[in-house]
Amino acid sequence: MTSTSTALLTDHYELTMLSSALRDDTADRPCVFEVFARRLPDGRRYGVVGGTARLLDAITRFRFDRAELDQLAAADVVDERTLAWLADYEFTGDVDGYPEGELYFPGSPILTVRAPFATGVVLETLALSILNHDSAIASAAARMVTAANGRRMIEMGSRRTHEEAAVASARVSYLAGFTATSNLEAGRRYGIPTAGTSAHAFTLLHDSEAAAFQAQVEQLGAGTTLLVDTYDITKGIQTAVEVAGPELGAIRIDSGDVGPLARQAREQLDALGARNTKIVVSGDLDEYAIAALRAEPVDAYGVGTSLVTGSGAPTAGMVYKLVEVEGRPVAKRSSHKESRGGRKGALRRYRETGTAIEEVVYTEGHKPALGEHDRDLQIPLVRAGQPVPDLPTIEQSRERLRQALVSVPWEGLKLSHGEPAIPTTFL
Amino acid sequence: MTSTSTALLTDHYELTMLSSALRDDTADRPCVFEVFARRLPDGRRYGVVGGTARLLDAITRFRFDRAELDQLAAADVVDERTLAWLADYEFTGDVDGYPEGELYFPGSPILTVRAPFATGVVLETLALSILNHDSAIASAAARMVTAANGRRMIEMGSRRTHEEAAVASARVSYLAGFTATSNLEAGRRYGIPTAGTSAHAFTLLHDSEAAAFQAQVEQLGAGTTLLVDTYDITKGIQTAVEVAGPELGAIRIDSGDVGPLARQAREQLDALGARNTKIVVSGDLDEYAIAALRAEPVDAYGVGTSLVTGSGAPTAGMVYKLVEVEGRPVAKRSSHKESRGGRKGALRRYRETGTAIEEVVYTEGHKPALGEHDRDLQIPLVRAGQPVPDLPTIEQSRERLRQALVSVPWEGLKLSHGEPAIPTTFL
Repeated sequence: MTSTSTALLTDHYELTMLSSALRDDTADRPCVFEVFARRLPDGRRYGVVGGTARLLDAITRFRFDRAELDQLAAADVVDERTLAWLADYEFTGDVDGYPEGELYFPGSPILTVRAPFATGVVLETLALSILNHDSAIASAAARMVTAANGRRMIEMGSRRTHEEAAVASARVSYLAGFTATSNLEAGRRYGIPTAGTSAHAFTLLHDSEAAAFQAQVEQLGAGTTLLVDTYDITKGIQTAVEVAGPELGAIRIDSGDVGPLARQAREQLDALGARNTKIVVSGDLDEYAIAALRAEPVDAYGVGTSLVTGSGAPTAGMVYKLVEVEGRPVAKRSSHKESRGGRKGALRRYRETGTAIEEVVYTEGHKPALGEHDRDLQIPLVRAGQPVPDLPTIEQSRERLRQALVSVPWEGLKLSHGEPAIPTTFL
Repeated sequence: MTSTSTALLTDHYELTMLSSALRDDTADRPCVFEVFARRLPDGRRYGVVGGTARLLDAITRFRFDRAELDQLAAADVVDERTLAWLADYEFTGDVDGYPEGELYFPGSPILTVRAPFATGVVLETLALSILNHDSAIASAAARMVTAANGRRMIEMGSRRTHEEAAVASARVSYLAGFTATSNLEAGRRYGIPTAGTSAHAFTLLHDSEAAAFQAQVEQLGAGTTLLVDTYDITKGIQTAVEVAGPELGAIRIDSGDVGPLARQAREQLDALGARNTKIVVSGDLDEYAIAALRAEPVDAYGVGTSLVTGSGAPTAGMVYKLVEVEGRPVAKRSSHKESRGGRKGALRRYRETGTAIEEVVYTEGHKPALGEHDRDLQIPLVRAGQPVPDLPTIEQSRERLRQALVSVPWEGLKLSHGEPAIPTTFL
């Protein structure tokens, strides 16, 4: 059972750092923390920001109530002074960031948190958990939507990921352009369209395939989708049209070599007069399989495992780094994992045609002139602890991504491994 | 905010199947559903069952309260008759399965659910979400623990996965033999030891590394772990021992080529008289990196990304299949995704020496004689809807896995890609 407080979705060391900082009076030093990805996942050409709205909600619930404080005391995580400080915790800082649905590239300042050290440091794990997961799934989903080239996409991966990650995955899949999800909780929580009709179990339950189809059509209408590959697909399609009539909404094929099967199914459906019956395919599809089916008569794709596991990149690899203390840039400098100190902003440059050219990341005070076609990338998200009014809705984020993908240079939309679609310039 | 009801963590199609089955009176047919994996993730030699206890808890909370019913009505997912049926839903069936911490192989009947169709079909997504996620992480964790060969392991991957998946990951990592987790919520929910001291941000916050170390040691004692790689590691170690004295508990190195760095650090610590100061390494470790560090003077590993993403296998690929209806075996048979019908049991055969030889999966009525060293693999989990008394604790599951790994033939513990450690025989 999940508590409504998000405060313990936190790494132990954040609270011990807090306790040590309270001891030597460094806890109140004004700081800037930044979320960014050092690089994109191997071979990816762009990333999609996902999870920002979930994060802002989680921050408002980041409170140490009695239950959390008792646990920290019982487990001896921190001392009394720190517990007293946590009891009064509420986030009072400012947050700016890339809006959901925006593209990001290596070094993009996806989130900037300005707050006293103690207030900001405790949000590290929560911010990264949400942004790393949701951005990974959003990025994979966007590649699949691009590959589907306008065809309908149904997210059905809940069973292949943690039950709550499933809900978040459904959300960002919709944001990335999927049409619907199988996940009912995502329907409730985020108002996303849900879809589904039946599994093989329903056919196996019945004495015959015809009996199963009959029950489903009586209950859900001839516009339903019948799953035709439990026994023999050709017979399944024959039976489906016999039972539902040529007004049958769709058939679904969940196994086998779906390309040739879709072609045969289309011919058979047309011959049976079911010319408007759609063909839905599912079963181990990823963006490559979807792209390979472009020439086939497929109307919709059901995508599961590959989507909710980020199609090879299950986490976005973002980090949450302290970049400024009392106005002074700070950065680790012992090894290859170096960061650039200082608070940063970002803008994207575009050609007159609307094609993106370059991501420009600048430290404060070094913002270059904004060209006619350029635009700033961060928006205000939180002021003095309160989410700003009129944050983007999921529909607006969906539209933002749709437009952002149009602006990517054509080679940046290729599914093959490659360099980031546009370079990042640091000023 | 997560509702305490788990009922909508469900795919839409389960409820439409239910509604269709209620229409034609097939809903009450006695059924058996089985969870199994057709194969192990690519190249893996064994899988570890994880999540069973979480699933049993989730099943007891699988109730359609007013809020869930209102949502299903508003979204027009099912009709009035189905809503009325759901309002009375509680799981009343029986469940048997492999206990947590048990090994599994292709075809192992990891969970067997006996219930009327309607009662059992609605649990598909919930069961698979939990078992697929938790087993994937448990399996990766077990490989890492094996690679660490007795050294301490700290789970610190929360930031690289969904915030709730992080809690579940911490749980099964501990089950698999990890010593502690960074995740405070896992500490609360499951009583797992948590650990952590500081990040680079804490050093950067301060005017000097010495000031940061001083604050931490004053607060947490000389037994703490100081992170020494923010600036120059050699200077960092020197400063750490100057500040904490030779009783310093440990240093942590989070970047760079940790093998040579650990060796240098050990020499330096010994020269400074800090002979008992431990060395903790972290930063992009996976089971291969851990194994490669075996000869180095490392005392503990902190593992993050690779663990919570299943180290290349982020989902276990288990399915939930209807295998029996009214006592008659059923199975899909249109393609390569065939299943074996019928309710199954399983036993594992062992040599006299205790080494496992073979996984035997048999359909009911075909159970072979149990040899002297063989053992049954399923245990009762739920009877008439109630979890059975004295289910294994997490500590017992941890011990079960430890012993199970001892029984694996030596080549089955190799990290390289290979065949399952023991073959599965179907009777």
